[in-house]
Amino acid sequence: MNTDLQDYSHKRFNILTGEWVLVSPHRAKRPWQGQNESVSNEVRPTHDPNCYLCAGNTRINGEVNPDYKDVFVFTNDFAALQSNSKTFALNNGLFKAESETGICKVICFSPDHSKSLADMGVDAINKVVKVWQEEYQLLGANETINNVQIFENKGAVMGCSNPHPHGQIWSQSTIPNEVEKKDNQQKTYYSKNKSSLLGDYLKQELEAKERIIFENDDFVVLIPFWAIWPFEAMIAPKKQYKDITQISEKESLAYAEAISVLTKVYDALFACSFPYSSGIHQAPTNGEDNNHWHWHMSFYPPLLRSATVKKFMVGYEMFGTPQRDITAEQAAQRLRDLVK
Amino acid sequence: MNTDLQDYSHKRFNILTGEWVLVSPHRAKRPWQGQNESVSNEVRPTHDPNCYLCAGNTRINGEVNPDYKDVFVFTNDFAALQSNSKTFALNNGLFKAESETGICKVICFSPDHSKSLADMGVDAINKVVKVWQEEYQLLGANETINNVQIFENKGAVMGCSNPHPHGQIWSQSTIPNEVEKKDNQQKTYYSKNKSSLLGDYLKQELEAKERIIFENDDFVVLIPFWAIWPFEAMIAPKKQYKDITQISEKESLAYAEAISVLTKVYDALFACSFPYSSGIHQAPTNGEDNNHWHWHMSFYPPLLRSATVKKFMVGYEMFGTPQRDITAEQAAQRLRDLVK
Ligand SMILES: O=P(O)(O)O[C@H]1O[C@H](CO)[C@@H](O)[C@H](O)[C@H]1O
Ligand SMILES: O=P(O)(O)O[C@H]1O[C@H](CO)[C@@H](O)[C@H](O)[C@H]1O
Repeated sequence: MNTDLQDYSHKRFNILTGEWVLVSPHRAKRPWQGQNESVSNEVRPTHDPNCYLCAGNTRINGEVNPDYKDVFVFTNDFAALQSNSKTFALNNGLFKAESETGICKVICFSPDHSKSLADMGVDAINKVVKVWQEEYQLLGANETINNVQIFENKGAVMGCSNPHPHGQIWSQSTIPNEVEKKDNQQKTYYSKNKSSLLGDYLKQELEAKERIIFENDDFVVLIPFWAIWPFEAMIAPKKQYKDITQISEKESLAYAEAISVLTKVYDALFACSFPYSSGIHQAPTNGEDNNHWHWHMSFYPPLLRSATVKKFMVGYEMFGTPQRDITAEQAAQRLRDLVK
Repeated sequence: MNTDLQDYSHKRFNILTGEWVLVSPHRAKRPWQGQNESVSNEVRPTHDPNCYLCAGNTRINGEVNPDYKDVFVFTNDFAALQSNSKTFALNNGLFKAESETGICKVICFSPDHSKSLADMGVDAINKVVKVWQEEYQLLGANETINNVQIFENKGAVMGCSNPHPHGQIWSQSTIPNEVEKKDNQQKTYYSKNKSSLLGDYLKQELEAKERIIFENDDFVVLIPFWAIWPFEAMIAPKKQYKDITQISEKESLAYAEAISVLTKVYDALFACSFPYSSGIHQAPTNGEDNNHWHWHMSFYPPLLRSATVKKFMVGYEMFGTPQRDITAEQAAQRLRDLVK
C-alpha cells in the first residue's frame, strides 16, 4: 500500500469523468460541532393506507395501484420530463436553451412498505433487475429517447419523500452532463487501447485488493480510487457489457447478490437504514455503437461518521473540487470487515 | 419574455462551465412530503463564551483570539491543505494521484456573534472586502499557491458548524475542477472575440432586464440564465477585472452595497437567516496573464419553498444533470420585488 496516500493531502484523478477529488486524510480528526441528522428507527408497517406507492392505494391523480406482488412500474405523476412537451430551441447571443422531452417512471421494488433492498432476498432483487432491463430496452427503443437514467434516492436525507422501497427512471432526448463526461473518457481510452477503460481498471483493482469490498464470479463491489462520498461504492461486471440487458441469467443473479451484499453492509456500518442515491450508468440509447461503454452502478451515501453525521458537499466543494477526509482504502477496509 | 422557457421542460447552457441545467417549470406544483429542515430563530448573544471565533476566547489548539474590533483572519486549525505537507506523485496505470499543498484560513467578519453579512452595514462589509483583497494578494504572491478560493458556508444546513459570522479561504498549488472549467470557457471566448465572456453576457442581461435583481454604477446582481439552485445569484463588476484587488475604492463600496442588498433580500424572502454557500471565482494566481478572466461572486442557497423546504440535489442530479423547477426569471422577480 502507498502510505503517502494515507498520510498527506493529495488529489486523485477520476478516469471516468476526467475530474479530480481532494483527499485530506489528516482531517478526519476534526471535531464535529455542526448539524446532526435525525435517524428514524420507526418500524414501518408492511402496508400503509396513506402511502401512495402501496398496493391497492389511490395516488394523488386518482389512479389506483394494482394489487401487485413483486415489482410495479408506472409513469411519474409529477414527471420532470414529459413526452408530449413542446420542442423549441433558443439561440439568442449568450442565452442558449433547448427543449427537453422524456419519460419519467417510478419503480416500486416490493409491495412490502417496511422493506428496503437490504431486507429483500437475492431472488426478489433479481426481479427488480429484470424490470430495469425491460425498461432500459423499452424506453431505449423509443426513438425520441437517447438516454435512460435509472436511480434510487433512499432516505429522507437524500430527498426521498416516501419510505416505500422504490426507485426512478428519467429517460430523455439528450445526454445528461455526467453521462457525457463518462462517454468522452471511455471513448478516448477505447479508441487508443481497444479495450474497456473500466475493465482494465477493474483488473488493476482486483490485483491491488485494497479497495475491494466483495466479488463473485461475475461482479466486483469496490470503493473507486477516486471516490468522493465517504462510503461511495461501485458495482461493475467483470466482463465488458454496454448495458444491463446484455448480462446472462446467471450474471443477473450475481449482480443481485452484489447489490444485496453491499446494501446489507451499508446498513450494518452505522446500525441504521443507510441512506444513499444510487444510479446505473450505461450506454446512451442514441443509436451509436457505443462499443466503448462498460456499464456500472454507483452508490453515493452521505453519511460520514455515524447515522447522524453526514458529509456536507458545500463551499469549497461547490466552488472548487469535491473533498473527502477518510481515504477510499480506509472506507473499503471498514465495509469489507462487515461482509458476512 | 420567451414564454416557452416558463412553460416547457428545457435545458439551459452555462457559458462559464460549459455544462447544462435541466429546467422543469411545470413541476413546481408537485406537493412536498419529504424532509423538512429546522429553522433556528434563536436570538444569539453578541458574545458567546463557548464560541471559538469570538474575540478573547481560546480555540481548540490553545490559541487565544485577540480582542479584534472588525475583521480577524487566522490559519484554519483543521486545515484540509497544509503548506508543509509532503509532495509526491503516483502514476500507477489507472491509479493517478498528486500531492496537494496549500494554506487554509478562517475570516471572522465581525466580533459580533449575533450578526451575519445581512445585518452588517455597507462600511463593515467593505472591511471584509478589504481583507479578501489583502489575502488574495498575499496568498497569491506565494509561489506555491496557484489558486485562492474565498468562500462562505452560512447556516447549519450548509455544513456550517459555528453561527459566528465567518468565511474561509482555501488556497492551493493546483487549479480546482470548477475554476478549471471557467478558465477554459473564458479563454476560448476571449481568444475568439477579444472581449470578456462575462462582460458581454452582463450587457445582454442588462438589456433583457428579466433576471436582474439590483444594479448600481459598478455592479450587477442577477440570477444567471443557467442558475442551478432555486435562488442562486451572482454579483459581478460591470467592467472586466481579473480579480478583486483591481477594483477602486469607489467600486469596493459598490460591491459591498451589492452584497448588502442581496443578503438582506435573501433574509426577507422566507423570513429567516437565509442559508447559502457563496464563493468568489477569480483569476488563478498561477503567473499567467489571465486576461480572459472576469471575476464574480456566486451564491448557492439550498432553500426552495420556505425556510424549511430545500431543494435536494440527489439521484438524477448526481448521475445526470442538475435540475430545477422554478425558473430563473420567476426567482429574479421574487427577489427584485423585495429590494428596498
Ligand atoms: O471547514 P468547516 O466549516 O468545518 O466544514 C465545512 O466546510 C468545508 C469546506 O466547504 C467542507 O469540506 C465541510 O464538509 C463542511 O462541513
Ligand atoms: O422525484 P422525487 O423523489 O419527488 O424528488 C427527489 O428526486 C429528484 C430526482 O433525483 C430530485 O430532483 C428532487 O430534488 C428530490 O427531492
